[in-house]
Amino acid sequence: MDKERLYLYDTTLRDGQQTQGVQFSTAEKQQIAATLDALGVDYIEGGWPGANPTDSAFFEAAPATRAKMTAFGMTKRAGRSAENDDVLAAVLNAGTGSVCIVGKSHDFHVETALGISLEENTANIAQSISHIVGQGREALFDAEHFFDGYKSNPEYAVACCLAALEGGARWIVLCDTNGGTLPQEIGEITSAVIKAGIPGDRLGIHTHNDTENAVAGSLAAVEAGARQVQGTLNGLGERCGNANLTTLIPTLMLKEPFASRFEVGVTRAALETLTQASRLLDEILNRVPVKQAAYVGASAFAHKAGLHASAILKDPSTYEHIDPGVVGNARIIPMSNQAGQSNLRRRLSEAGIEVAKDDPALPRILEEIKAREDRGYTYDSAQASFELLARRELGQLPQFFEVKRYKVTVERRKNKYDRMVSLSEAVVVVKVDGEKKLSVSESMDEAGNDRGPVNALAKALAKDLGRYQGAIDDMRLVDFKVRITQGGTEAVTRVIIDSEDGQGRRWSTVGVSANIVDASFEALLDAIMWKLARDGGQI
Amino acid sequence: MDKERLYLYDTTLRDGQQTQGVQFSTAEKQQIAATLDALGVDYIEGGWPGANPTDSAFFEAAPATRAKMTAFGMTKRAGRSAENDDVLAAVLNAGTGSVCIVGKSHDFHVETALGISLEENTANIAQSISHIVGQGREALFDAEHFFDGYKSNPEYAVACCLAALEGGARWIVLCDTNGGTLPQEIGEITSAVIKAGIPGDRLGIHTHNDTENAVAGSLAAVEAGARQVQGTLNGLGERCGNANLTTLIPTLMLKEPFASRFEVGVTRAALETLTQASRLLDEILNRVPVKQAAYVGASAFAHKAGLHASAILKDPSTYEHIDPGVVGNARIIPMSNQAGQSNLRRRLSEAGIEVAKDDPALPRILEEIKAREDRGYTYDSAQASFELLARRELGQLPQFFEVKRYKVTVERRKNKYDRMVSLSEAVVVVKVDGEKKLSVSESMDEAGNDRGPVNALAKALAKDLGRYQGAIDDMRLVDFKVRITQGGTEAVTRVIIDSEDGQGRRWSTVGVSANIVDASFEALLDAIMWKLARDGGQI
Repeated sequence: MDKERLYLYDTTLRDGQQTQGVQFSTAEKQQIAATLDALGVDYIEGGWPGANPTDSAFFEAAPATRAKMTAFGMTKRAGRSAENDDVLAAVLNAGTGSVCIVGKSHDFHVETALGISLEENTANIAQSISHIVGQGREALFDAEHFFDGYKSNPEYAVACCLAALEGGARWIVLCDTNGGTLPQEIGEITSAVIKAGIPGDRLGIHTHNDTENAVAGSLAAVEAGARQVQGTLNGLGERCGNANLTTLIPTLMLKEPFASRFEVGVTRAALETLTQASRLLDEILNRVPVKQAAYVGASAFAHKAGLHASAILKDPSTYEHIDPGVVGNARIIPMSNQAGQSNLRRRLSEAGIEVAKDDPALPRILEEIKAREDRGYTYDSAQASFELLARRELGQLPQFFEVKRYKVTVERRKNKYDRMVSLSEAVVVVKVDGEKKLSVSESMDEAGNDRGPVNALAKALAKDLGRYQGAIDDMRLVDFKVRITQGGTEAVTRVIIDSEDGQGRRWSTVGVSANIVDASFEALLDAIMWKLARDGGQI
Repeated sequence: MDKERLYLYDTTLRDGQQTQGVQFSTAEKQQIAATLDALGVDYIEGGWPGANPTDSAFFEAAPATRAKMTAFGMTKRAGRSAENDDVLAAVLNAGTGSVCIVGKSHDFHVETALGISLEENTANIAQSISHIVGQGREALFDAEHFFDGYKSNPEYAVACCLAALEGGARWIVLCDTNGGTLPQEIGEITSAVIKAGIPGDRLGIHTHNDTENAVAGSLAAVEAGARQVQGTLNGLGERCGNANLTTLIPTLMLKEPFASRFEVGVTRAALETLTQASRLLDEILNRVPVKQAAYVGASAFAHKAGLHASAILKDPSTYEHIDPGVVGNARIIPMSNQAGQSNLRRRLSEAGIEVAKDDPALPRILEEIKAREDRGYTYDSAQASFELLARRELGQLPQFFEVKRYKVTVERRKNKYDRMVSLSEAVVVVKVDGEKKLSVSESMDEAGNDRGPVNALAKALAKDLGRYQGAIDDMRLVDFKVRITQGGTEAVTRVIIDSEDGQGRRWSTVGVSANIVDASFEALLDAIMWKLARDGGQI
């Protein structure tokens, strides 16, 4: 039997941005769009052009994607033609192939929120959609409050959808805007809508997680016949979030009755990057990934000691509903010290470091990692620092140079024009080949802006390393992440720095300290050490 | 129509303790049991007596509860009588009125994991249950892997349940142990089990959240006829967690078709303590509460989108599926890029700032917020900085004092013992009432540890503010969050600081700069300003 196509519509960049505290930059939007595209979603809703500067900037330089880039907006307002509605014009001006517009489908909202007649509203929908279609675009209609509207006035809710359909909309999306409809009712109403004349392969479902049922509601709509599923990565979104595509994608691909009935645009190979995509978004948001997240959480396949762990050793399928590798995740079993060592050897070997099974350095390295992780270090996301730590314990790391001391000054005062200005200055003293070298740099960039103490320190540290200078001249810092691992100003700061060199190599290092400048310095130092070791053939 | 009784069975203290990283102390178990009892659950599963010292200690001093305190264990092992099974004896010795034992119901597990015949297993179940009942206790049977077992061998899975029923079990609990069964299938199999002879009012449901469907699966089982629901507070539990009672309780009480068909032991008054109960558990676990949690999360009733926010002003029911007060939660209308003027006025009014609809300061404030959010500020999570910004634009904020300049030094060098040590020192110069005041502090804490430049700066700033000193002496910083809003060392740093005073007030302020020290200083300054304005009656 041929599988039916199911379409995935991602709204991380639009509805996901409604999450409290989330405000993507244009660069972050581009990075997320690329991730979604690589994953294989069919539509990427990029934002609302004209509603805010970031969204407008994103569409001006929207990345080329295989997925259909979609601009979001709303139906034209009453009392003007679709051609003369400036809000709608701004949406169309983004030039995307697909345009999704939201409109009312609940009689109560039409009359109280818009204050127009029911007929005016359906006319607005039909005219807005046909205007979009007339411009050669694919049109989608988001029927806001659809389920509440249907419960209040089913004929009118369906009439709004029919107006969009007649206007030429490719998709009519049934939105449970306030997240209050339970899955069974979503399924029943979706069936009724199909009976009322909207074909299932023109219907989408958009749910929210206010009762923790956004995934179940989406599945119920698909079982009832809807063929487009809307959601966000990691379930980002207003209030309790949108339907979580990170959960829906593997469920639709791996679990019955969906897996054998449908196909989606995500390949099995792309599915293996799901965990990575989820973590990337958290990284961009500087959020701690949710350990208990379905499929992709660090605990999703973690088996605590006892009955389960020993059963897992006999047969993983006993306590795992899927193979964790299929979604790029991994099993975690509390390990004996011995199991920990074989795990470590495997990881060292992956880094090109071969260590004999009985090497006394193995338990030492394990102890050191454990002790440091207790203090806030993380070696999962700082592979270069892990390699340096292991090489050091194994006696395989030369001391290229020694840092004798550093000093950074951060100052803020009024300049001669009576404006407050700030400036940082760093002095670093190193010893290379027995020779002491003092370097000083300030934090001012070429445009005259203060880039802060870490910038000054990085420049001073890389200014004069004697015969090693050539090896680090092509190095640059590409990312810098800070996380406080405990509350209070007396917290511990973890800094992770990503570096890149002229050959396109990229590596990550970590530093931890109560002093944020010192934590940054430690990560900077590791970054240079790794580069020297790698170029010198030691790594 | 009389409502049917639905029973709530909490396993936070047993299955919840399987969460990675969770290990309750006996005192914590007592505190949680008291919270659950006040909430009104019917059963509290306290742990497995004999399996670990904490669980045994808890039952030895179990609190008196209205809820039925329940001990957990497993069916007797093969080759010995129920009377002579020491593991089962330890469970019975806990002396609880209810005893829940887990046993196999999946043929594959019986044969591979237990290595006994199918008949031996059903006999073990029946004999274990009748032994418990014979001791005058209420018996529950947890049918492990029931749904997978049913899919593999429906007759045998049901036979295991019938054995427990014939042994005298009050409840047969269908467990989806690995969390892999989707809601619709749970509903169908539950119906089939009832048809096969287990009455629905003897059936319980126990689901896990591995596909984010634990709540939906429980609801499907109730719709099919099951009358006991098992779960945990905040969805604690192994891997992705158990069914979340914090979500299920309000859903069953407030949403149809459940609300009018069923009654539970939780009163409407107790339901208003739900948010508090959820936060208490997080506090015990020292976890940051999940903002997006259904019903009880801090963001569950937070409205960000401009469209939504203005509709909420007209009628809260438009974007809220329930009244937040019913579960002890509250509405939040944060500021954001997408906010309109009505949102702004509403938020100002909530902060006690009344502004006329046509006040020319409104568009100015909105512009200022938009411009600052583009530069990396976020006012969603920094309410105090928002209030200061608005007061300043409205000309309602006195300039309590002026910062003339500051200077921070961060130094790392070898001490006299040849060990690397670091130290920061901050000088802050302020002008209060026309008088210039110089303060200096260092970053060393009482234990002799360097706490970094921000700590030194905070101490120096709060050291001498003349006549304002008294107002800030009871202030302390309770949290400090750093986020880089663009990549590279030339990124912009956003610092959010949470402060608290002696009256238990807590407020958040934000600072943004390429210079992390300067961003921190800005947030520190706002924190002090807010406190002065609030105590001075300006806010």
